[in-house]
Amino acid sequence: MRTYVAGIFLFLTSLVVAQSQPQLNLMPMPASVQSGAGQLPINQAFSVAVTGFHDASLDGEVQRFQTQLSRQTGIPFRPKSGAAPSLQIHADHGRQAVQRLGEDESYELTVTDSGAKLTAPTTLGVLRGLQTFLQLVQITPTGFAAPAVTIKDQPRFPWRGTLIDVSRHFIPIDALKRNLDGMAAVKLNVLHWHLSDDQGFRAESKVFPKLTGMGSDGMFYTQGEIRDLIAYAHDRGIRVIPEFDIPGHSRSWFLGYPALSSGAGPYTLEGGGIDPIMDPTREETYKFLEKFIAEMAKLFPDAYFHIGGDEVDGKQWDANAKIQAFIHAHGMKNNQDLQAYFNQRLQKILAKNHKTMVGWDEILHPDLPKTIVVQSWRGQQSLAAAAKQGYSGLLSFGYYIDLMWPAARHYAVDPMADAAASLTPEQQKLILGGESCQWAEWVTPENIDSHIWPRNAVIAERLWSPQDVKDVASMYTRLNAVSLDLEFLGLTHRSARMHMLHRMAGTSDITALRVLADVVEPVKDYNRWSDAKGPIDFHAPLTRMIDAVYPESDVARHFSDLVQTFVQSGYKDQAAEAQIRNWLTIWRDNDVKLQPLLGQTFLLQEDVPLSQSLAALGAAGLQALDYLDKGQPAPDAWKTQQLSLADQAKKPMADVLLMVAAPVQQLVEASAASGHN
Amino acid sequence: MRTYVAGIFLFLTSLVVAQSQPQLNLMPMPASVQSGAGQLPINQAFSVAVTGFHDASLDGEVQRFQTQLSRQTGIPFRPKSGAAPSLQIHADHGRQAVQRLGEDESYELTVTDSGAKLTAPTTLGVLRGLQTFLQLVQITPTGFAAPAVTIKDQPRFPWRGTLIDVSRHFIPIDALKRNLDGMAAVKLNVLHWHLSDDQGFRAESKVFPKLTGMGSDGMFYTQGEIRDLIAYAHDRGIRVIPEFDIPGHSRSWFLGYPALSSGAGPYTLEGGGIDPIMDPTREETYKFLEKFIAEMAKLFPDAYFHIGGDEVDGKQWDANAKIQAFIHAHGMKNNQDLQAYFNQRLQKILAKNHKTMVGWDEILHPDLPKTIVVQSWRGQQSLAAAAKQGYSGLLSFGYYIDLMWPAARHYAVDPMADAAASLTPEQQKLILGGESCQWAEWVTPENIDSHIWPRNAVIAERLWSPQDVKDVASMYTRLNAVSLDLEFLGLTHRSARMHMLHRMAGTSDITALRVLADVVEPVKDYNRWSDAKGPIDFHAPLTRMIDAVYPESDVARHFSDLVQTFVQSGYKDQAAEAQIRNWLTIWRDNDVKLQPLLGQTFLLQEDVPLSQSLAALGAAGLQALDYLDKGQPAPDAWKTQQLSLADQAKKPMADVLLMVAAPVQQLVEASAASGHN
Repeated sequence: MRTYVAGIFLFLTSLVVAQSQPQLNLMPMPASVQSGAGQLPINQAFSVAVTGFHDASLDGEVQRFQTQLSRQTGIPFRPKSGAAPSLQIHADHGRQAVQRLGEDESYELTVTDSGAKLTAPTTLGVLRGLQTFLQLVQITPTGFAAPAVTIKDQPRFPWRGTLIDVSRHFIPIDALKRNLDGMAAVKLNVLHWHLSDDQGFRAESKVFPKLTGMGSDGMFYTQGEIRDLIAYAHDRGIRVIPEFDIPGHSRSWFLGYPALSSGAGPYTLEGGGIDPIMDPTREETYKFLEKFIAEMAKLFPDAYFHIGGDEVDGKQWDANAKIQAFIHAHGMKNNQDLQAYFNQRLQKILAKNHKTMVGWDEILHPDLPKTIVVQSWRGQQSLAAAAKQGYSGLLSFGYYIDLMWPAARHYAVDPMADAAASLTPEQQKLILGGESCQWAEWVTPENIDSHIWPRNAVIAERLWSPQDVKDVASMYTRLNAVSLDLEFLGLTHRSARMHMLHRMAGTSDITALRVLADVVEPVKDYNRWSDAKGPIDFHAPLTRMIDAVYPESDVARHFSDLVQTFVQSGYKDQAAEAQIRNWLTIWRDNDVKLQPLLGQTFLLQEDVPLSQSLAALGAAGLQALDYLDKGQPAPDAWKTQQLSLADQAKKPMADVLLMVAAPVQQLVEASAASGHN
Repeated sequence: MRTYVAGIFLFLTSLVVAQSQPQLNLMPMPASVQSGAGQLPINQAFSVAVTGFHDASLDGEVQRFQTQLSRQTGIPFRPKSGAAPSLQIHADHGRQAVQRLGEDESYELTVTDSGAKLTAPTTLGVLRGLQTFLQLVQITPTGFAAPAVTIKDQPRFPWRGTLIDVSRHFIPIDALKRNLDGMAAVKLNVLHWHLSDDQGFRAESKVFPKLTGMGSDGMFYTQGEIRDLIAYAHDRGIRVIPEFDIPGHSRSWFLGYPALSSGAGPYTLEGGGIDPIMDPTREETYKFLEKFIAEMAKLFPDAYFHIGGDEVDGKQWDANAKIQAFIHAHGMKNNQDLQAYFNQRLQKILAKNHKTMVGWDEILHPDLPKTIVVQSWRGQQSLAAAAKQGYSGLLSFGYYIDLMWPAARHYAVDPMADAAASLTPEQQKLILGGESCQWAEWVTPENIDSHIWPRNAVIAERLWSPQDVKDVASMYTRLNAVSLDLEFLGLTHRSARMHMLHRMAGTSDITALRVLADVVEPVKDYNRWSDAKGPIDFHAPLTRMIDAVYPESDVARHFSDLVQTFVQSGYKDQAAEAQIRNWLTIWRDNDVKLQPLLGQTFLLQEDVPLSQSLAALGAAGLQALDYLDKGQPAPDAWKTQQLSLADQAKKPMADVLLMVAAPVQQLVEASAASGHN
């Protein structure tokens, strides 16, 4: 039986290998790629020429492209005047002054050994093609070069976004800008700016200054900064859609304007829970929103405007006799009807300001016009139901990057899968795309990049590339390459971890600490919330191991792959075994080196049992390999003891998970099975 | 004999250990430090209050101090209103609008377990004291804290500078700013801005726009940027002194204004050599300089103005009949007299603009007034000679950080040593301090930080701290701590190496490449120049191993120390031997892992023999240890072979040095000596 199973696995493995042959490190993978012969050298003579349409925005992009290529390669370009351009760019037309949903992003890129040509109907397509060119450039034995290739590319979905919550933790403009650079690099085209929530109101209103004056901790964006960020995003082909979350998630509004709320107050930003809700029964509420939305509609030029609408728990409505009376007087059945009434009023205000309403699942109601867009945190079923009623939708279910899932899990989520797969072609067109969501309960400007990147790139690929681009091994290979490119772009998703580990250690030699950090991941889903016990203190330092480590451990994934390879070889793959032994030895011996440091600093004391567990896993794995090598089953007592140890190691410690516990457990179990030699 | 020698070494070692007991990680070490009991916790409640004099500049500094403390600790401060301040700051007076040489920088800082107090005669002293406080803060088992201490501090020398050459490679404003931050952190107070040289003129002149228009590659600072940088430096207590190097090193002037030159031209920026010189015999030259200096004197507010004056090779003067006739007509003996004449004219122009002249050794001439300052690249003897004639001086000999010396070598150079030691107290006062020099033949904005830092901090200590602060082990311990702090300040001296190694490798896993990079250093002194064969191409990429690695290898120094410890123990220190074995094993086994990568990228191909040599050294060292363990002398033939291998490994390969070759050679030699057990 074992041989047979191993045979199947081997077959699968070789399939994966075949698909992940040396390839172009492109992410998102273009719609069509045809490899050619030879390569275009990238050296000091590299030059760019623009023909056809161009404007200041395109010129700026070409300048940034050259700067970035220079950073990646370290080459200061000195093109010779008069020489034929290395890269010829041609756009037929310019872009819309305000980028539109569905604006043409297509391009064609041809690279030969003598030159490259990038053509696009609009300069927006040129932006996308330049990012592809940057990803093509690789170091080779003879120099930097772009391989000969013909690419025809356009996105699968027109709406490919990332939500960044700046309410729970304020994220300064410079951090947002570098994340916009990252988004542009992987062809995302919407920044969904979650500007208000219970914990803070972050956009300056000149009409209602107390929104930020009392509804924030003093950290907010001025209108000048907002305009600047929108221009920065536009230059990179990214729309900016503001979200002001109402009628729930709106406690921060009520500090300055308590009359808007359905409860008595007083309110503070620090409290937990999501009970405070706007009062949709008072005309004054709509007068306020009329003025506020008129102001914001001018500030944010995009045609879409997000009003949140999620998680209205209704407790304040239930407890307010006047509101309950209003519900009965208007023949409404429940709080949902009241929210629908609120949304209809809101929709009319937005329409007057030439904005299309976007909101979360909960806003879906037959009384709202079909023009609205529903963003689903609930799943494809919710999207499909909306589409069947004629509503457009966006998928965010499965794309919550704050939940610390591995890239592969996000990658597997497709907007057209499950319930959406059975929609008619017309209905499918209503699914506009999706958005990853970076909720900010547990991030600071220091570590936000590593929470978003590189994993965000695989969601970008899901939304841009053809549906059948889904090979996981290829994805991880390309993700690694993208991750490096992003650091050259100025993102800090890798370097910040080093800073944070140094801070925790208080010393420059963090070799042993890195060994530990390399194999742990933060707890998943909302488990950190559960462990927090009570309301989260959004001003507490985020400087623990869980805050420093990557959401996904490359080392653990690699180790797990090695163990699978070894098991599938019937324990005969000596190269894999040697590598496994090497890792296990490092882990077994690491605790002795690390313990003196762990005791010295308060930020590492909670990691003492973690380090001990890793050492124990190393020892257990090595013993298991010894049993396997001898071909004799390990004794039951030993097995029981080691499995219990591994079970223990799989539980969260200090809110992180030892990701190598499971594969070590697998080795222990294998060693205790009957002899196989 | 051996036993006796080992005994002495052991004695010395324990002395060093005694001096380097756990200590405050301060650099530069203050003039007086008295440790107290307990520590001041640094937590979210940390607050600062300013009494006495304050102005916008001090307020800004206090703000930056809090931001930096927050970055170091990861704590977002939320002081409670009404609570006693954690740190009380009091300055009696403000600072000069234009910082003066010798302005009071003294301060006193007292930390107890209940609070800290920083007092200073002027706000300039507060700046210095705040940097000391930042360095005091460390992570402890109970939290971040500043240990109780009483510090009374003032600088040994009033002029403590760093020269940054921006002519050979342009260094953008943002890179200069982060280096100013670094300078302020170690209490340096002069940025000597080397703004023109043969290869580029970098400061905008509105009167003579062709200076940058034709005399640069388009990269220069506008006057607005210059004013901005000066203000930035002033806020940090740093004077900015411009250098326009004349009459030599001035080729870049002649592209736009060829009539200034003593030769026929035409000139290009690319040529090698230092022959082109200004013509000091034409009155038009002085008319030009009158206008130019008047413009620059307004732009640069400091009282001092650097006119270079070095390395006037005189060939163009010799070859110009008119100039030779002028020399004879004015009764001059030689070119030196002509340069002195030029400098006298220049000095008068400077005096009219209320500037004091600074220049290199060569300007020293009895016809110049005693007010001028001589900066010596030649040594203390030159300084002493000047002082005996009544001239002020600055030492830069021994502080050329572009020469890639280890920190300890710079640290050992004292302005008052050698010839200067025998000066009278009055003459010694004329020695104002010194400047490190970052000449820019081989740096880019990407790697300049690692060329300057952290080594620059030890020169800062030499110029600030009492002369008897010179323990090398203590210096290296504290340097490590400062180096980490500097990364939190935004300097890239550590992170840039990672970027550059990633670029060279073209892949994310650079473990084996780092093992190699960790033990090599760039060739020293001017050896890279000699190897360059012909004029340097200042626009060539600087992306090789030599460009990426640190000027000084911590690993190699640590390994060498281990070998000394082991040898001095009579080969009995088993802990040291185990560590030595560990390193040797890593190196022996590294080449197998690294070779596949080295072949894949053109930037690593030159490192193939380097990696092979390291492996051979690892193997040789391990064999030597085996012989030593057995207590039998290694065979002569083996010894000869290994010593020849080590000799080979000590020679530069790819312009870098394998710094572990010498200690391995020592092991080989020891193993071949007679048995010792």
